Amino acid sequence: MTRPRIVTLTSDMGSAYAAQMKGVLLQRLSAGRVVDVAHDLPAHGIAEAAFVVAHVAATFPPGTVHLVVVDPGVGGSRAPIVIACRDGSFLVGPDNGVLAPLAAKLGRPRAYRLDPNRVVPGRTVSATFEGRDLFAPAAARLATGARAAQLGPPVPYRHYEIPRAVRRGRSVEGEVVHVDRFGNLITNVPSTWLSTVPGSVTARWRRRSTVLPRRRTYAELAPRQVGLLGSSFATIEIGVREGSAAARTRLGVGERVAFTADLP
Amino acid sequence: MTRPRIVTLTSDMGSAYAAQMKGVLLQRLSAGRVVDVAHDLPAHGIAEAAFVVAHVAATFPPGTVHLVVVDPGVGGSRAPIVIACRDGSFLVGPDNGVLAPLAAKLGRPRAYRLDPNRVVPGRTVSATFEGRDLFAPAAARLATGARAAQLGPPVPYRHYEIPRAVRRGRSVEGEVVHVDRFGNLITNVPSTWLSTVPGSVTARWRRRSTVLPRRRTYAELAPRQVGLLGSSFATIEIGVREGSAAARTRLGVGERVAFTADLP
Amino acid sequence: MTRPRIVTLTSDMGSAYAAQMKGVLLQRLSAGRVVDVAHDLPAHGIAEAAFVVAHVAATFPPGTVHLVVVDPGVGGSRAPIVIACRDGSFLVGPDNGVLAPLAAKLGRPRAYRLDPNRVVPGRTVSATFEGRDLFAPAAARLATGARAAQLGPPVPYRHYEIPRAVRRGRSVEGEVVHVDRFGNLITNVPSTWLSTVPGSVTARWRRRSTVLPRRRTYAELAPRQVGLLGSSFATIEIGVREGSAAARTRLGVGERVAFTADLP
Repeated sequence: MTRPRIVTLTSDMGSAYAAQMKGVLLQRLSAGRVVDVAHDLPAHGIAEAAFVVAHVAATFPPGTVHLVVVDPGVGGSRAPIVIACRDGSFLVGPDNGVLAPLAAKLGRPRAYRLDPNRVVPGRTVSATFEGRDLFAPAAARLATGARAAQLGPPVPYRHYEIPRAVRRGRSVEGEVVHVDRFGNLITNVPSTWLSTVPGSVTARWRRRSTVLPRRRTYAELAPRQVGLLGSSFATIEIGVREGSAAARTRLGVGERVAFTADLP
Repeated sequence: MTRPRIVTLTSDMGSAYAAQMKGVLLQRLSAGRVVDVAHDLPAHGIAEAAFVVAHVAATFPPGTVHLVVVDPGVGGSRAPIVIACRDGSFLVGPDNGVLAPLAAKLGRPRAYRLDPNRVVPGRTVSATFEGRDLFAPAAARLATGARAAQLGPPVPYRHYEIPRAVRRGRSVEGEVVHVDRFGNLITNVPSTWLSTVPGSVTARWRRRSTVLPRRRTYAELAPRQVGLLGSSFATIEIGVREGSAAARTRLGVGERVAFTADLP
Repeated sequence: MTRPRIVTLTSDMGSAYAAQMKGVLLQRLSAGRVVDVAHDLPAHGIAEAAFVVAHVAATFPPGTVHLVVVDPGVGGSRAPIVIACRDGSFLVGPDNGVLAPLAAKLGRPRAYRLDPNRVVPGRTVSATFEGRDLFAPAAARLATGARAAQLGPPVPYRHYEIPRAVRRGRSVEGEVVHVDRFGNLITNVPSTWLSTVPGSVTARWRRRSTVLPRRRTYAELAPRQVGLLGSSFATIEIGVREGSAAARTRLGVGERVAFTADLP
């Protein structure tokens, strides 16, 4: 590393708990190396967090340490791990799948089980807050020169893939993988599919079926109109101009949606 | 600049999207130069964001780069701009008025339209997330020595003024321009008006009319009492001690209020 | 100090107001020394903020400046103070008790009343936003070498202790002192009490009485099951696996709970 590693923090635990992790990091690092991603992710939402983290973390420089704590099974049987990736980045968190899509995206992942005796020798690790007592010290050590293999033995880690959309003839079936602060429904259907479709598109969810306009930007929708757009995650997004598609459709994460290219 | 420029981030997009802008900034800047202002501003609320940003940004050092993304028309016809100001500060964001009050406050504004071919030559800019793909790279370049004129041609920019209160005899008419986290109703009526009034004040909104006590501090109100105070924005604020004036009055941003000096 | 002091920011005022304090700090400090703890603490909740701050701040390095603004009495008769502590840390905020538990934890507290004529000579301090106009400038000066005694005269400060749980035979009576983002109910009953109890535990609140399972981790509860755990504050926590104990029990901060060791 020619410049100091950054540590990013992502969690569902609220800013006050997260600040305890920051305090621990700052025992070893300057505050100018610690960056908040978000601490208001949906509580216990592993799949959604995995999706968000994979996209957010990919914008950071190579060699960053990404600390991700969305961990409904804290203290349980899932292992605490670090995954070292091709670009020199480290992913620290619980082995519950939340790190896996990012690891796949960064490439050449090698995982190690964090051993408290090696990370924080002689100290007690809280069963309910490994984020503060194990993950944060591990991230601080990785940011200051430790190699992943120094912190524990190699382990296989839990693979998890963001669900893939499936094409069937003129249709593509996927699901909502993220709802953003505006209520936009981010699906897992690649937005490239839209560009292969010549005319209008019928969207289906639950028992409902609607022809939705395709637009390049929100500004091309009428106020309050529902439409399909390319999301900033390179997938199709169901959005409402100056309104909430989640409120309008009552769709949420994990729900199925299908799009069909209408016949000309 | 004798010291490195800071980049501030303000948006309505939630912390996870904002973190993608941070990642882009940190490709060029150390984390110790990037400062979050807020990412939970009311969605699509250009007028309220313009008011908040004008007051918050003015507390930062000269030469700061303020990146503001409250942009319901993202990707539409409004231009992406940078405004260079007298004190060496740069304001980066959409040309929808959100930057204008701050530009007026900082003085001697000169605007330039951000040209993707100059800001991020050879790269694709997402139609739905210019914050990440155009504004953040522009801010990073400005923070590291680029001049605004290097990033695009001069343009006129959209002027927008925070609405002004109007005096009529013993009365002054204005509106609510911001509701803070406590539910305090910040108006656009200068608090200096209060000091010209000898006795009690009658406040009117919708069809309601009430004599409200004037206080210097919340501590001088009785618990749950509604009163008039000087806000930290140098305007009159309708507040409730240890309670929410917004909940009590059901007033929100954009609603008209009038104050009348009672006859002695 | 061998390394630059960090300034932490904690408040109930929302991020936009807090950013005005940051702007003031950055007039004197690099952004790499300013750390957000939380700005979404419950509005006007002095007791809860005191509890959270005491635990969070203790994870930060010695010599940190902790700026805490939870201040329902802003501008009123409570004094603005700084408390210097044994480890070289400074606590800056209102003298309403919010700093007291942290001061007691850090040890050897000596308080000084912030004198605007010494902190910001020749400037006007807003009656409604001392955080920006007095506390932030004081924190910036302390972080850059000022001694507490330079900013005002010594004063006694308001003591406040986080309420203590009381043991009575096989029972212990305490209260909820914090509700976290997941809805976990953090009590003031030391979790060491649980380890002295051999069998099951009956919990009582309001007129309700329930036998609750004791678990080391959430993973040992069944989904949606209510149980007792050790919190990350070293006290007993009433939690629900992947759910909100606050929603289930309708308990909140300040409400009494009692635990009784069941007879074998």
